[in-house]
Amino acid sequence: MTRLTQYFPVLEWGRTYTRQTLINDGLAAVIVTIMLIPQSLAYAMLAGLPPVVGLYASILPLVLYAIFGTSRTLAVGPVAVVSLLTATAAGTVAAPGSPEYLTAAIALAVLSGLMLLVMGVFRLGFLANLLSHPVISGFITASGLLIAASQLRHILGVQAGGHNFVETVAALVRALPETNLPTLIIGGLTLAFLFWARSGLRPALERLGLSGGTAMLLSRTGPVLAVAASILAVIFLDLESKGVAIVGEVPQGLPPLAIPGIDLALWQKLLPAAFLISLIGFVESVSVAQTLAAKRRQTIRPDQELIGLGMANIASAFSGGYPVTGGFARSVVNFDAGAETPAAGAMTAVGIALASLFLTPLLFNLPVAVLAATIIVAVLSLVDFGALRRTWAYSRFDFAAMAATILVTLGAGVESGIITGVALSIVLHLWRSSRPHVAELGQVPGTGHYRNIRRHDVVCDASVLSLRIDESLWFGNARAVEGIVQRAVADRPNLRHLVLNCAAVNSVDASALESLELIMHRLSDQQVALHLAEVKGPVMDKLHKSAFVEDLTGQVFLSQHEAMMTLAPDTTRRADLSPRPNIDVAAAEKPGGRQQRSS
Amino acid sequence: MTRLTQYFPVLEWGRTYTRQTLINDGLAAVIVTIMLIPQSLAYAMLAGLPPVVGLYASILPLVLYAIFGTSRTLAVGPVAVVSLLTATAAGTVAAPGSPEYLTAAIALAVLSGLMLLVMGVFRLGFLANLLSHPVISGFITASGLLIAASQLRHILGVQAGGHNFVETVAALVRALPETNLPTLIIGGLTLAFLFWARSGLRPALERLGLSGGTAMLLSRTGPVLAVAASILAVIFLDLESKGVAIVGEVPQGLPPLAIPGIDLALWQKLLPAAFLISLIGFVESVSVAQTLAAKRRQTIRPDQELIGLGMANIASAFSGGYPVTGGFARSVVNFDAGAETPAAGAMTAVGIALASLFLTPLLFNLPVAVLAATIIVAVLSLVDFGALRRTWAYSRFDFAAMAATILVTLGAGVESGIITGVALSIVLHLWRSSRPHVAELGQVPGTGHYRNIRRHDVVCDASVLSLRIDESLWFGNARAVEGIVQRAVADRPNLRHLVLNCAAVNSVDASALESLELIMHRLSDQQVALHLAEVKGPVMDKLHKSAFVEDLTGQVFLSQHEAMMTLAPDTTRRADLSPRPNIDVAAAEKPGGRQQRSS
Repeated sequence: MTRLTQYFPVLEWGRTYTRQTLINDGLAAVIVTIMLIPQSLAYAMLAGLPPVVGLYASILPLVLYAIFGTSRTLAVGPVAVVSLLTATAAGTVAAPGSPEYLTAAIALAVLSGLMLLVMGVFRLGFLANLLSHPVISGFITASGLLIAASQLRHILGVQAGGHNFVETVAALVRALPETNLPTLIIGGLTLAFLFWARSGLRPALERLGLSGGTAMLLSRTGPVLAVAASILAVIFLDLESKGVAIVGEVPQGLPPLAIPGIDLALWQKLLPAAFLISLIGFVESVSVAQTLAAKRRQTIRPDQELIGLGMANIASAFSGGYPVTGGFARSVVNFDAGAETPAAGAMTAVGIALASLFLTPLLFNLPVAVLAATIIVAVLSLVDFGALRRTWAYSRFDFAAMAATILVTLGAGVESGIITGVALSIVLHLWRSSRPHVAELGQVPGTGHYRNIRRHDVVCDASVLSLRIDESLWFGNARAVEGIVQRAVADRPNLRHLVLNCAAVNSVDASALESLELIMHRLSDQQVALHLAEVKGPVMDKLHKSAFVEDLTGQVFLSQHEAMMTLAPDTTRRADLSPRPNIDVAAAEKPGGRQQRSS
Repeated sequence: MTRLTQYFPVLEWGRTYTRQTLINDGLAAVIVTIMLIPQSLAYAMLAGLPPVVGLYASILPLVLYAIFGTSRTLAVGPVAVVSLLTATAAGTVAAPGSPEYLTAAIALAVLSGLMLLVMGVFRLGFLANLLSHPVISGFITASGLLIAASQLRHILGVQAGGHNFVETVAALVRALPETNLPTLIIGGLTLAFLFWARSGLRPALERLGLSGGTAMLLSRTGPVLAVAASILAVIFLDLESKGVAIVGEVPQGLPPLAIPGIDLALWQKLLPAAFLISLIGFVESVSVAQTLAAKRRQTIRPDQELIGLGMANIASAFSGGYPVTGGFARSVVNFDAGAETPAAGAMTAVGIALASLFLTPLLFNLPVAVLAATIIVAVLSLVDFGALRRTWAYSRFDFAAMAATILVTLGAGVESGIITGVALSIVLHLWRSSRPHVAELGQVPGTGHYRNIRRHDVVCDASVLSLRIDESLWFGNARAVEGIVQRAVADRPNLRHLVLNCAAVNSVDASALESLELIMHRLSDQQVALHLAEVKGPVMDKLHKSAFVEDLTGQVFLSQHEAMMTLAPDTTRRADLSPRPNIDVAAAEKPGGRQQRSS
């Protein structure tokens, strides 16, 4: 791959573009366009922005991603969680509806675009690894609940909000008496229809004789059907006069191209939020892209994805839009509809551009409740309480990180939630790996195999202690290993040799090297020699860069058996010469006591 | 060990206390007292406090540590780095010399004592693992330079200070013309004597006929000799009238016992500094304690050390002192002088109490320059530029963390320095382990051994890919593994089986489990079955708590050879039946190409 095609993946797939690819991409683009119109209006509303901003964010960004992105089928645009993050961040610097609020949303797109670009160029995508799965999963569940709660007021047709989940729900309950019935009916019907459409529409269409694939794709057009039907209902039943809130005038025409203003004071305030938006957007997008790529044995390059998403966000800012990323549902639809290349995304952009040129007058009478219902149905599918149960069963630590993320996100907000989750998962990870599993090894009688004395029937020698450290050695556990060795040696007055079996040690950092040197010197004060066994090639290469191996009071053995043959020849040879029973090592894995063969 | 002796180690060693132990402890106490008097005066001055505060911090804390500490020979009291941290923190809330400044120093002792206690009771000592060795080493080197630069003004007898290292040095250079010659002479002579005493005094004493041990202990009394000689010089040469700054009146009597005030606003400001003081004091203290304990095959319990140091700091606050911890030099002297139990520390406390009752009037004429020289000689021994070179040779990452800590500490201060170092070492650690080493395995012909195809001459089967992941799987590298597997599979159209060899995987967290599930589903979309081999017992136990093993598209094999015998019987059996050459696996470790045995 040349440097140019590395940064412009379009040069690679563009070369083999055929007429058939064009047709397939075009068909997919039509389906995705139909799906994206109500979604982009709704997510812009969720972000506290005029609905048309959602359309603007769904044109140029798609074209730029098509040029720079590495996923063949990722569909980029406004998504729920990023819209919520945008609303939270912009809400801290301006009031929703004000021009400053829109400026802040555009600034978030610029900042997050620049950050993604920088991360891509400097290969900093690994920062996304800070977001562990339980934290992301918990965050998305909590975000889904927050978003659904915030949109319920549109379904009821009331004014009610709060600074956190509990406040929002309480405000909704208090506002219940003011419910606008026509709004509730139209919102409730839409909710019911959309929930049914998720599972019931496809079989219904199949019963009408459509093929499975076509029925599946058409079933995704549920929101558009709801939009069309509700607009007609508003017009013919004159629902506006009955108190049903409608979208109102949506500006007609292509997005206004403008260079976003550079307001450093504003940027500074929005920086942490933009970083979160970048990381979370990137993680979600890459995860979808990778899953879809795998289905066709394609690959994506995460670092180039950062550049693709960065360019998309900058394009969004230049065309009056707000932060975008790859969306799960629409990418799946794009894939299933047969999209073969990112050109499908560019064609979707053309579709949305046409919609904003010609369809916006039709949206005047669209009830806000229908958009709210679209959002609620989309986000409730993100809520996954089962993950709490599964994570609890698997690991208490991961459960703690997930639960803390959910509770803090619901109680104190999205940014606090993420930060708490990340900090807690790092601390818990440090804690876990600061207590490495260390096994004392003994010889499976009559074999060259050495196993944990607590799990197997093995023999040991009183003058040689073999410890297998089941963890890479780094600053997080170096001191713990010092303590473990020291305690083990303090108990054994006859000890002369300590063998550290390093078969499971994948790396040794400078702190751990220092600890190994300390351990060696302390052992030497106790007349115990330190030996190493089964050190991996790359680890040994590294140790040779220090004076440790040279200064070692003992030896480095290729295998544990070699170490025992050298250090405890009497015990070990006797075991070797004894008639070799035809035992399977695995079969010997019953708990058994430790036998002392020599004094 | 009962719960009571666990928290009161004194109950354990106190039971076997003999007359001989008493004599040994008493002798050590005398030596340490003589050494501690000038040190505690000097370090209090370094902390910006009246010299007597150093004595106060060397009485009750020693008694409390003797009751609660687990090290037999650790000598607790004021130390250089903690004094610098105290000065920095107290300096942000009050002017040195003001009553508020002393209040802040006492508050730091309370806070850090409480934090240490809490960390001890809740077993949070692992937090100290956040401080990697390169960060501590770099921080201590930078602190040594900062302290030495800050004390040089006392040697020159000028007023000069700065907010960072460069400013301080520049101010000293500008102030050179105002140097007070008598002060410079007395300071310079003391410096020269103390530097010589470190290496030259012991051989000189030995030439006078003293035994090696006695000479060594007496050589540690250099600072006391300098103090006595300089006091006499000030009196007989009337140096005060010639501009030599002296300590002046030191209050006589035992420390005033008082409950420290609870000022929540002040505490909040000092909280981060107190946390740093606690962590750094704990790390230094435990490291010394562990090294000394090892020499006599004793052990220390880090969690109980937290309680011991916590009680010592609270005692310091109640007796008008400032934060204390275990000191390196004085603990070594205590050990070498024959201290056998913490009672030696309690007796040292009696010694210092007698000194503050009877000796303080003698200190009136002590030149400040002599105290400054004591500090400079002590801290310059902490500066270790060789560590930079050694760390560079061993690991660029660890070098970066160390260099950043030194530069930021010198340029922006101690707190920024530590925080930068910790953050950088965590980020670099995440980066390092986010790129796990993954080896493709092939069979060493005619054996049951499987090795990295890039390092060994091995055979593979085109339909089976075996990858050995040389890292525990956690959220830091889970996504990287997804990418590695996906790229490996995308290149191999004939692949049917992927075997993940988990011999070096010591744990799998929930994020990694999710990734394994994703990998499995993506592979399944590509008609590739996922198998596991050589999974460790504890990891397998954990995986069984999830649905992963049940849902696995392939099998779990006990050994790599078993996997290959099952999945690629033709290739593998042929290899097995081939005449077995008498080769040693290690000898086959030459770089060699990969041979395809089957299509």
